[in-house]
Amino acid sequence: LEAEQMMEQLIHWVRVDGSGLGRPQLPGDVPTNSMAVPMMLLCLVQQLSEDRRGVEQKYAELGSWCVQQILQHVQRDGAAILENVSADGSELPGCLGRLQNPGHALEAGWFLLQYAAERGDEQIQTTAIQKFVELPYESGWDKAHGGLFYFLDVDGHCPTQLEWSMKLWWPHSEALIALLMAYSQSRKAELLQSFFQVYEYTFSHFPDPAGGEWFGYLTQEGKVALDFKGGPFKGFFHVPRCLYMCERILDDLLASKE
Amino acid sequence: LEAEQMMEQLIHWVRVDGSGLGRPQLPGDVPTNSMAVPMMLLCLVQQLSEDRRGVEQKYAELGSWCVQQILQHVQRDGAAILENVSADGSELPGCLGRLQNPGHALEAGWFLLQYAAERGDEQIQTTAIQKFVELPYESGWDKAHGGLFYFLDVDGHCPTQLEWSMKLWWPHSEALIALLMAYSQSRKAELLQSFFQVYEYTFSHFPDPAGGEWFGYLTQEGKVALDFKGGPFKGFFHVPRCLYMCERILDDLLASKE
Repeated sequence: LEAEQMMEQLIHWVRVDGSGLGRPQLPGDVPTNSMAVPMMLLCLVQQLSEDRRGVEQKYAELGSWCVQQILQHVQRDGAAILENVSADGSELPGCLGRLQNPGHALEAGWFLLQYAAERGDEQIQTTAIQKFVELPYESGWDKAHGGLFYFLDVDGHCPTQLEWSMKLWWPHSEALIALLMAYSQSRKAELLQSFFQVYEYTFSHFPDPAGGEWFGYLTQEGKVALDFKGGPFKGFFHVPRCLYMCERILDDLLASKE
Repeated sequence: LEAEQMMEQLIHWVRVDGSGLGRPQLPGDVPTNSMAVPMMLLCLVQQLSEDRRGVEQKYAELGSWCVQQILQHVQRDGAAILENVSADGSELPGCLGRLQNPGHALEAGWFLLQYAAERGDEQIQTTAIQKFVELPYESGWDKAHGGLFYFLDVDGHCPTQLEWSMKLWWPHSEALIALLMAYSQSRKAELLQSFFQVYEYTFSHFPDPAGGEWFGYLTQEGKVALDFKGGPFKGFFHVPRCLYMCERILDDLLASKE
C-alpha cells in the first residue's frame, strides 16, 4: 500500500533522522517537540488504522509514542498547554516557549479523545477534556470580541506573530468538534454550553451568505480581513471535516436518547 | 577585512551557488529574482564602498549588476513594481508574481537614488523617482485609513499574507527617506507634499508618547496591534537610520537655501 510506504518515510523523518527534509540542523537550534508533529502523526495513525485490525496492531507503539509526545505539552503544573517544548518535555525559554495555539490544542484534544475512546482509557480521556479542551477554550476565547485567538503568550505578553489576534476559521472548526466530542463522552453540560457559544460565533461570522463557503480570516473585531475562500493554507479540509464529524456526533447523541 | 570576506561569501551565495544556505532546490521550485536580494546587496556595496575608492572600484561591477536586477522588477509596461519576477526578468504566474511590497519598493528607490547621485546618472535617477518612489507611494497608500499597506496584489485581489493590510513602522521609515531624497534631488513640490503626508501619519501613530520609541505594528485602522518595541524583526535599525538620514537631508536642504 502506497500510503503505508509514505507513512514509513514520515516515521523515519520524525523519529530517526529529519535531515532528508532538507532543513539542516543549524548551530544554536535546539531540538524541540512542536505540537504539530506528534499531533498530525497520531491523526495519520488513526486514519490508517480505522477498521483495519492488522494495521492497528502495526502502529500501536507509534500511536502510544505520539500520545506521550502530545502530553509533554501540558506545562506549568497542568495550568497551560504550550505549543513548543524541549525534546525531553520541559519548557523552552523565550517567546517560542511561551507560545500558545488554542486551535492546535483543541484539535489535539479530540485526537486524544478518539484515542481514549478506542481503548477505553479514562485517564487519557480526563486529561484530554480538562487540559486540551476546557483549558485552551477558556484561555483562548476573546472575552472582548468573541472568537478564538490564533496565538497567545502564556504570560500575557504580546505574541511576536503579526496575526496573533486574528480569528481564523480552522481553530473554530476544531473547537466545535472537540467540544461536542468531549460533551458526548462526558455529558458535562458546560461543554455543550461552550459548543453553543463557538457555534454562535462561527456561524454568524465565517459563512458567506452571498457567495457560499466560509471566509477564513477575520480581524480581532470579526471583520473579514482576507476575502478569498481558498488559499495556500485554506482548502477543502477543516470545514467539511467539522461539519461531517459534528453531524455524526449529533446523530449519535439523538439516537442514544431514544 | 572580515566584512569583505563575508561579502565574498554572500556574493557566492547570490550569484554562483546558494545551496550552502541549506535550502535545497526542490522540484517545481522555479528560480526567482526576489527584490530583497539585489536590494540588500546594493546596500552592502554602498556601505562597504563609502569613502573608500579602492573598494568602490572592486564592487563596481557588482553594484551595476544589483541595479539591473532591481530594475527587472519594473513590470506591466512600467505601471507597477512587482516583488518577485523570474530569473530573466519576466512576470511570474499566480499570487507570488502579483505580490507588491510598497515599503520594499520605496527602500529600493532611495538605494537607487544614492547610486544615481554618486554617478550623476540621470536615467537611473528618473526611473528611481517615477517607478520606485512615486508609483509605490501612490498605489501603496491606504486612501481610507492612511498609512502604507504591507502587501498588495497588483490586480487588486486580496493578498494571501494574513498581515497584508497592517501598517508597519519600517515601510513608513523608508518612505520618509525615499520621498525626502527624491525631493532633494528633483525639487518636485509634490514629493515634499507626500513626505509631509507620510510624516503626519508616522509621527501621529508610531511613536509611544508614554514609553518612548516607536510601536512597530498597527491594524489597518491604525490601532496598535503588537505592543512591543523590539522583536524578531524590529531592532535598532529602521528608525534611527530614518531619523539620521532625514535630518542630514533636511540640513543640506536648509544649507543650500542660504
